[in-house]
Amino acid sequence: MNDNPLPSMQGPVCPVPLQHKEKIVLGHGSGGKMMNDLIRDIFLPPLDNPILRVGDDAGVVTPNGNTYLSISTDAHVVSPLFFPGGDIGKLAVCGTVNDVAMMGAKPLYLTASFILEEGLEIETLINIVNSMKEVSDEAGVQLIAGDTKVVEKGKADGVYISTTGIGTVYPMVSISGEQAKPGDQIILSGPIGDHGIAVLGARGELGFTSDIKSDVAPLNHLIETMINTSKEIHVLRDPTRGGVASVLNEIANQSNVGIIIDEETILVNPSVQAACEMLGFDPLYIANEGKLVTFVSERDSKKVLEAMHQTKYGENAVIIGRVNQTPKKRVLMNTLIGSTRVVDILAGELLPRIC
Amino acid sequence: MNDNPLPSMQGPVCPVPLQHKEKIVLGHGSGGKMMNDLIRDIFLPPLDNPILRVGDDAGVVTPNGNTYLSISTDAHVVSPLFFPGGDIGKLAVCGTVNDVAMMGAKPLYLTASFILEEGLEIETLINIVNSMKEVSDEAGVQLIAGDTKVVEKGKADGVYISTTGIGTVYPMVSISGEQAKPGDQIILSGPIGDHGIAVLGARGELGFTSDIKSDVAPLNHLIETMINTSKEIHVLRDPTRGGVASVLNEIANQSNVGIIIDEETILVNPSVQAACEMLGFDPLYIANEGKLVTFVSERDSKKVLEAMHQTKYGENAVIIGRVNQTPKKRVLMNTLIGSTRVVDILAGELLPRIC
Repeated sequence: MNDNPLPSMQGPVCPVPLQHKEKIVLGHGSGGKMMNDLIRDIFLPPLDNPILRVGDDAGVVTPNGNTYLSISTDAHVVSPLFFPGGDIGKLAVCGTVNDVAMMGAKPLYLTASFILEEGLEIETLINIVNSMKEVSDEAGVQLIAGDTKVVEKGKADGVYISTTGIGTVYPMVSISGEQAKPGDQIILSGPIGDHGIAVLGARGELGFTSDIKSDVAPLNHLIETMINTSKEIHVLRDPTRGGVASVLNEIANQSNVGIIIDEETILVNPSVQAACEMLGFDPLYIANEGKLVTFVSERDSKKVLEAMHQTKYGENAVIIGRVNQTPKKRVLMNTLIGSTRVVDILAGELLPRIC
Repeated sequence: MNDNPLPSMQGPVCPVPLQHKEKIVLGHGSGGKMMNDLIRDIFLPPLDNPILRVGDDAGVVTPNGNTYLSISTDAHVVSPLFFPGGDIGKLAVCGTVNDVAMMGAKPLYLTASFILEEGLEIETLINIVNSMKEVSDEAGVQLIAGDTKVVEKGKADGVYISTTGIGTVYPMVSISGEQAKPGDQIILSGPIGDHGIAVLGARGELGFTSDIKSDVAPLNHLIETMINTSKEIHVLRDPTRGGVASVLNEIANQSNVGIIIDEETILVNPSVQAACEMLGFDPLYIANEGKLVTFVSERDSKKVLEAMHQTKYGENAVIIGRVNQTPKKRVLMNTLIGSTRVVDILAGELLPRIC
């Protein structure tokens, strides 16, 4: 196949900077282009440093020159607090455990800060905390620090939870969104879109009842298995906000490569597919909370795939594409109808408060 | 002086557990007794582990057996976002830098997660981020990971910021709220109550205009100086929510000792004192964001005090009391009028959303 099926594309046009007189809209939290603009124009200019600039799911630092720590943080504002397959507590633990692990690290410690709305039922909080405990045990991480603030009724929405995770990078591992290399095979760990559609269902926004459950899960044991199998895993990322389409675009940009995926290989559960068709959504942009994409050398890709198949959260893993030299910073897809189309980054907000 | 001026007191009566049918009220975020109940009855039972159980400002862990990391997290929900002497950004950095440093650690890295309310002016966010940058530089810490979520208008209050800090504990140091020892001298780093009263003033709740500025400041360089001066610093803590009274009670409980302080030694700026008198507040319960209390062996206390006087944030440090064997878990105060009274922990909420 031609490395460069659409040679006229040279990446996105020059971005327009955010104006100081603008206001925050929901799209700024979407995980797509508007959020990237916010980071590029507002957060990075003052706070810029080499670790932050990489743009990975977690920062890797070495406080004493021999231990490499992977550190990640996330605020969780999902609405509703409980949804099929999980709740904000499980999500807060898994989201951060997964981000830490995506640097090729073993998550060890978590912190959690809670913002509670006055009037919240104590019973609700107990259920959320118990859920955090259960999935922390599965992941093998320990909550070592916490904080609680309470705001007046109408100044939050039940509970918001910010979690930070700290883990140690496995020896001899260098995994980053900057490490994708031409020839790499791209593996997706299972069917996509379950989390976003499950949350939408819990909001009553599907217009029909569904059996779709969120895929929210801790992926650190899956990743440990993968790393024990191959030293040629170049990239790991979880396609949360913005979905698979957005993370592939992020990686194409970070590594300055082209990505081509095959639509027919991408698994979507039939009920998720049906919901997406009714609502006009593309599953490639829907959030997942228990899936990963990984970029592995062609040589090791089969071995890694087989190892993934032996695990609870990787049994449906499949190779969905590969990395090319060009067109740089572009994601293309061979469609079911035989054409090739650009898979762009999400522009604004598809589903607010999905995580 | 008698070690046990009120021998009939044997600590608080048996606490009544929180009921599952209750609801969260503002007092649960106060830093006082209600928050302790919430932690004891809701968070600790499922999440209990030796690190969390200590109840210090930060957890200390050792991921590889030779580096000791101090890790702390805080949610910041102060209202208003800007107040004399600081803003939510400066507060979010200092609050976490200080909590990390209070374990005898050098803060190195910060993460920040932002919850933004739809409609927030971008200009406001820029000012907050610039403020975070400025004080991060002063403290010498690097922001290495971040996250942004946006919620609908009316589901937050402008900006909430959760920060987590990571630092390395200085060699040969073992500082904790459990380490107070009979005979220790208690040093307070300066006048109290400025932060709480400054925020109240910014809300227009003083009923008069005032020149009171928040004391919000990073204390890590002060602490480094103290640790370089003495190996006999046993406890460090910053009296934020709940004020000096609450932290002294926490330490008396953690170390199972008695504490006696002298009211005449405790500095309060005249305008803070005037505001407290008008509003019926006791400055001992008002939040500070740039002060610390430390417990030092009697032998080294003068040396540490002199070293503190040479620093920017410790120039008004003063010895305010000492540790006794008994009455265990009690804080007593020799008052200006010559009596001795119990200084109890704050029960409910004094000032909501002060940090």
